[in-house]
Amino acid sequence: MNTSLNDKDRPLAQRKVAVIGGGVIGASWTALFLANGMQVVVSDPQPNIGQKVRDYVAQATPALRSLGFGMEGASSNLSFEPDIEKAVQDADFIQENGPERVDFKTSVWAQIEKAAPATCLFFSSSSGIPASVQSEKMRAPGRLVIGHPFNPPHLLPLVEVVPGPGTSRALIDASLAFYRALGKCALEIRKEIDGFVANRLQSAIFRECVYLVSQGVITVADLDSVVTHSLGIRWATNGPFLSFHLGGGDGGFAHFLDHLAPGMETRWREQLASSVHFDEPTKRLIIEQIQSGYGNRSIAQLAAARDTKEIAVLNSVRDLPQ
Amino acid sequence: MNTSLNDKDRPLAQRKVAVIGGGVIGASWTALFLANGMQVVVSDPQPNIGQKVRDYVAQATPALRSLGFGMEGASSNLSFEPDIEKAVQDADFIQENGPERVDFKTSVWAQIEKAAPATCLFFSSSSGIPASVQSEKMRAPGRLVIGHPFNPPHLLPLVEVVPGPGTSRALIDASLAFYRALGKCALEIRKEIDGFVANRLQSAIFRECVYLVSQGVITVADLDSVVTHSLGIRWATNGPFLSFHLGGGDGGFAHFLDHLAPGMETRWREQLASSVHFDEPTKRLIIEQIQSGYGNRSIAQLAAARDTKEIAVLNSVRDLPQ
Repeated sequence: MNTSLNDKDRPLAQRKVAVIGGGVIGASWTALFLANGMQVVVSDPQPNIGQKVRDYVAQATPALRSLGFGMEGASSNLSFEPDIEKAVQDADFIQENGPERVDFKTSVWAQIEKAAPATCLFFSSSSGIPASVQSEKMRAPGRLVIGHPFNPPHLLPLVEVVPGPGTSRALIDASLAFYRALGKCALEIRKEIDGFVANRLQSAIFRECVYLVSQGVITVADLDSVVTHSLGIRWATNGPFLSFHLGGGDGGFAHFLDHLAPGMETRWREQLASSVHFDEPTKRLIIEQIQSGYGNRSIAQLAAARDTKEIAVLNSVRDLPQ
Repeated sequence: MNTSLNDKDRPLAQRKVAVIGGGVIGASWTALFLANGMQVVVSDPQPNIGQKVRDYVAQATPALRSLGFGMEGASSNLSFEPDIEKAVQDADFIQENGPERVDFKTSVWAQIEKAAPATCLFFSSSSGIPASVQSEKMRAPGRLVIGHPFNPPHLLPLVEVVPGPGTSRALIDASLAFYRALGKCALEIRKEIDGFVANRLQSAIFRECVYLVSQGVITVADLDSVVTHSLGIRWATNGPFLSFHLGGGDGGFAHFLDHLAPGMETRWREQLASSVHFDEPTKRLIIEQIQSGYGNRSIAQLAAARDTKEIAVLNSVRDLPQ
């Protein structure tokens, strides 16, 4: 993530993006687009959407400044247009964040396709409805690409770029290039799969988290602390495969496979056989332990502390040799 | 991890610890104990053990200095004694890192128990043989506690403290206090379970990593990049439970449970039904992709970059409000 933040290095400055849906995700994208000097038009039928989005952008501005973005001109580059067809008519890019309903997605994309310029790139933030489904009513369904951020998009670098079955190689590359020009870490997901990659990994680890707490092996707050003081530090710097490659010493991943893979497969069998459900006693136990571990601070206080720490971590590794 | 590193705040300075086994884990513990001003005696029958451990400590010294430790006096506080009974006879603490064999562990602890002072605390770094098994030949088996570090111990904060079934509350508390005085994040694992907590979580997520790569959803290097640019940053600052508590917005974890838990349970069922094995094609695929993703740098170069980044992350969050 070697983002160059000088104005001359903002390749998207003055390019126009239409943000469809100004909820939390749309507002966060808006803040990031403005930080990159883009012209942003938000299209959302809600009353007071202008105030809501401007408030979100104001709240996100210190974080973006901490990450090195200038926010000059942000206010004058932001506009609102409830009529979707007008909003997209001269857009270079669309980032759609509407309701997660198939009927909404299919009809909004058919509408956008008719009104937007032929060269406009189409992105949906959806985590749940793949491009192949959203694009069903489009004349050129391959044009639609998922650009799924990790929340909040203005702060965390990952964007999962998930093309549809008919998306061309050139369009996939242009999609990756767009998000990379914004300073994001855009990565290609090569097959449509429920949850893409990050959320699938999160589900897999969380099953074991719930199991260990439900069995009384560890408390909620202590489990969180295990992660932040070991795996989190490792994974903020090196992913799981590279970590095991290095864990194998001079023999690398092959050595890991010879020595640790059999034990890990045995543990997988045991973990698969375990029973884990969000039944009432389990829910109650977790909520009680969250209350005793974190109940002394409000959600807003905890979230502010999280953002401050995430920015510190991002800044600590961004300029180191990769 | 609010470690106070002034000499007056080193509560373990001049206390004596016997390190049994001077391999990579034992040498890393040695470096950390020396950084805390402790007297360290390493007991290992290997020839040249002195040179090996001194080399490791020298190599670890820049990292420890970067974390804020002074290393003055380290060299004169380090000694070697191959005879275990002599090594432990006046020790305040034992940290055992010998071979992971039940016969070795049971006999060495019986021997240590006879020779060490009655007030000495007994810790094993073992990740695989629980205290209840290691202590089988001891007269007071409850004295033995697992102090399992996350590798390397001189760098990563986590120590999983796993008592045996007969360990007293007072001894568990004293064990946690020992590691916390060293600046570690010591956490109690309340039941003996294979892999304790961190390695079980690592196994659970890695199964899904192998699945996604084996299915061609993403490459090894891109999956690593997904993690370092999203979940890793999140988990370096907030654990999985707190993250979902905050992901629930003002409604907290209860809101998360109502809205996201059903979908997560559905995904668990799908993930459990998937077939994931370290069969030959899967091994070959991963090793090829590790080679194409990381093969341009040596293990030593990659490991040095990892350590530098881990230190940067540790330093970035240590003094922020928790």
